[in-house]
Amino acid sequence: MEKFDLIVIGAGPGGYVAAERAGALGKKVLMVEKDQLGGVCTNWGCIPTKSLLNSAKQYRHAKESGKMGVHCHDVTFNLTEAMAWKQETIETLRNGIQFLMKSNKVEVVFGEATYTDNHHVVVNDTTYETDYLILATGSSPIMPPIPGHDLPHVLTSDGILAIEQVPESLVVIGGGVIGIEFASLFSSIGTKVTVVEMMNEILPMMDGEFAKLIRREMKDVTFHLGCKVESITSEGVQYTSAKGEKSSIASTMVLMSVGRRPNTKGLEPLGVVVQRGGVVVDDHLRTNIANVYAIGDVNGKSLLAHSASRMAEVVVSNLFGSGVHKMRYSAIPWAVYGIPEAAGCGLTQQEAEKKGLKVVSATTQMRSNGRFLAEQGKRAAGLCKVVADAVTGVILGVHLLGPYSSEMIYGAAAILEAELRVKDVKEIIFPHPSVSEVIKDTVFAIDHTL
Amino acid sequence: MEKFDLIVIGAGPGGYVAAERAGALGKKVLMVEKDQLGGVCTNWGCIPTKSLLNSAKQYRHAKESGKMGVHCHDVTFNLTEAMAWKQETIETLRNGIQFLMKSNKVEVVFGEATYTDNHHVVVNDTTYETDYLILATGSSPIMPPIPGHDLPHVLTSDGILAIEQVPESLVVIGGGVIGIEFASLFSSIGTKVTVVEMMNEILPMMDGEFAKLIRREMKDVTFHLGCKVESITSEGVQYTSAKGEKSSIASTMVLMSVGRRPNTKGLEPLGVVVQRGGVVVDDHLRTNIANVYAIGDVNGKSLLAHSASRMAEVVVSNLFGSGVHKMRYSAIPWAVYGIPEAAGCGLTQQEAEKKGLKVVSATTQMRSNGRFLAEQGKRAAGLCKVVADAVTGVILGVHLLGPYSSEMIYGAAAILEAELRVKDVKEIIFPHPSVSEVIKDTVFAIDHTL
Repeated sequence: MEKFDLIVIGAGPGGYVAAERAGALGKKVLMVEKDQLGGVCTNWGCIPTKSLLNSAKQYRHAKESGKMGVHCHDVTFNLTEAMAWKQETIETLRNGIQFLMKSNKVEVVFGEATYTDNHHVVVNDTTYETDYLILATGSSPIMPPIPGHDLPHVLTSDGILAIEQVPESLVVIGGGVIGIEFASLFSSIGTKVTVVEMMNEILPMMDGEFAKLIRREMKDVTFHLGCKVESITSEGVQYTSAKGEKSSIASTMVLMSVGRRPNTKGLEPLGVVVQRGGVVVDDHLRTNIANVYAIGDVNGKSLLAHSASRMAEVVVSNLFGSGVHKMRYSAIPWAVYGIPEAAGCGLTQQEAEKKGLKVVSATTQMRSNGRFLAEQGKRAAGLCKVVADAVTGVILGVHLLGPYSSEMIYGAAAILEAELRVKDVKEIIFPHPSVSEVIKDTVFAIDHTL
Repeated sequence: MEKFDLIVIGAGPGGYVAAERAGALGKKVLMVEKDQLGGVCTNWGCIPTKSLLNSAKQYRHAKESGKMGVHCHDVTFNLTEAMAWKQETIETLRNGIQFLMKSNKVEVVFGEATYTDNHHVVVNDTTYETDYLILATGSSPIMPPIPGHDLPHVLTSDGILAIEQVPESLVVIGGGVIGIEFASLFSSIGTKVTVVEMMNEILPMMDGEFAKLIRREMKDVTFHLGCKVESITSEGVQYTSAKGEKSSIASTMVLMSVGRRPNTKGLEPLGVVVQRGGVVVDDHLRTNIANVYAIGDVNGKSLLAHSASRMAEVVVSNLFGSGVHKMRYSAIPWAVYGIPEAAGCGLTQQEAEKKGLKVVSATTQMRSNGRFLAEQGKRAAGLCKVVADAVTGVILGVHLLGPYSSEMIYGAAAILEAELRVKDVKEIIFPHPSVSEVIKDTVFAIDHTL
């Protein structure tokens, strides 16, 4: 029986990073994957959506760039080609992961893992022994048992990434990140999109002002907030409004994006405790079983690819490295790659106040920013909000809505990790002209002294 | 005679920021401008070039997006409309500066300033008295006395921003930032562009590997390196190659972009010392005259808009604020908004080694990055290099070539200002998928331990 230092279950951004990092440290590592290298992120999540959203953005830009002197005629969107471009990206990234595994001497087996006990994993009838086990089995879309949910035109994010024709109309059930990104995508390429959300606002992790502005900027999309879907038929979706009124939306396709559920099925023989759907872990990502760790979506702590990767590093550091790391959740950036883009890192003002902190904050419009104006014009929407501790001046959160948000937000993560104060950020030199200058301007709006 | 706490000469990104910040602190401030609010940056520099470059990028994207499923037919570039869009941006920003001055109670007079002494400034025959004087008079394009330099088709950056037709051909003399940005702009919209540079590589502030790659990626542009321009005629440009061979390039337009010279003319009555063309200042931006400061291009220290703005803040802080600031030059980001973009902050490896530092560094290709691949494809060029101190691990420099570089680089400025080490940056969570992740990957390439 082959014995490993570490077996990793799942080859997503949690699993493959754990395997890579442990392999780089000279450990004997096995990674088990039941489907494709890269997991949901690379194959049915982050990457394909960003590829298609980029095509959709190019399409919008081509139609809208006349105002800046660029005229395009007969602009058409070819879904088959966009899907092929997306597929090429996925395959290149999968090959990249394969190469990474090889160069770090990680053994990879494809198949479903079962467990004899917490030291023995069986894949395709072969048993592998291990000192440590990392569960990185991810999550799956939730399909609530609404009548009609099993009709063929009702898809989850997996299915909608494989369609062959742009749908005429689409109802998106659930206005979270996944729902809003697909709503942006399809409304940009000509689909009539309606979003039905049970809560009173979309994108619940976001500052309320920002969510409202995104919704307003998605001019081609109809939103029904505070509405409960009652049933789905081949003609469309029936829902009850906040006031109790029943209505229906005609639609040729329905996307179910109400959330994701940790993949804990099959873990029973390990004896790990599962609560609220996720494997229970502490700040070191330890489960109740001494040598078993759970990272990424499966522990339900932070369902983001980069959280999973960081958790992988924390575990590998503690097992095989310097071992001083706890997983910190205070500076995890998030991004919504819609049209417009948004991103944030740290606390919203509401969250900070709920924690009992005394905060100062400022919000500025991007339209006083030179590059924003040069590229977007003065009627475009863009916001930056910075939240800081009123007593210490330490920056608690940075929130962005507008172009480049997803590429600027890592800097906020650096500022938060370094625990920089308002007065420290005022000393950072931001390049001119750049949209990023809006962060500095917002910090000066909190405190203009020098 | 009206008396002020501060008179600022020049309304560019040095002058107007000084006036704004001092006004915000309740000081009585006069700003003198001989031409337009915003100075060169807003009117004939940063802003108009970025506006036109954005139009040029849209034009390129429209022609190249077929690979991702977006087809545009008969794509045309209308220079008149692009210039009008640019002009609208400029005017919006000028109005913004005017509003800023008003809301901070800064008095603005338009006219040429002359000096009775270091406390008295005369504008339009009116004399104003002041405690302190900040010189922010900027710089002007150098026009070397090459035979033919005064022909009407020989333009500087000022003139080329006012042309009415896309030139058939253009020779750019000087491969610095300004030359490369205009070469990118015009080659993208159909002009046959040739760059003639006296040095052996373009963009001398940049890591050599990066400059070479930018040059290679500018496929439509012809470069003649190590070449000296001998004369200009109405037919074109005559030059001598590194090997001493004489050649000529036919061209309908010539851009002279060999550098800029501080505007020190007229400062003589103040008695400030001028050396190598710039007003001599110390780390507090003090001149040899006790109450006179010089910020921005006029002191020749760092000819960048954001350096000027930071210098303004340093002076105002020392005059009217907490007063603990020196001007630091170690974390000033720069960006080249060409096609492709590049940006950097801190030391290149060559610069660090020249300072006698023992360094570690790594360079990674962006094409292993998910978002880069999804948007640019696997044949596109992108690089990230990180330079760190081999002894302490402190990050010394971050260098980027590829999309979003100019918007990502402020994060490097934050990292450098906070003196983060390699091991600290490895703990920052970067959002996935984003091009910014390449910075983290490069840091791990320096040291893969955890």
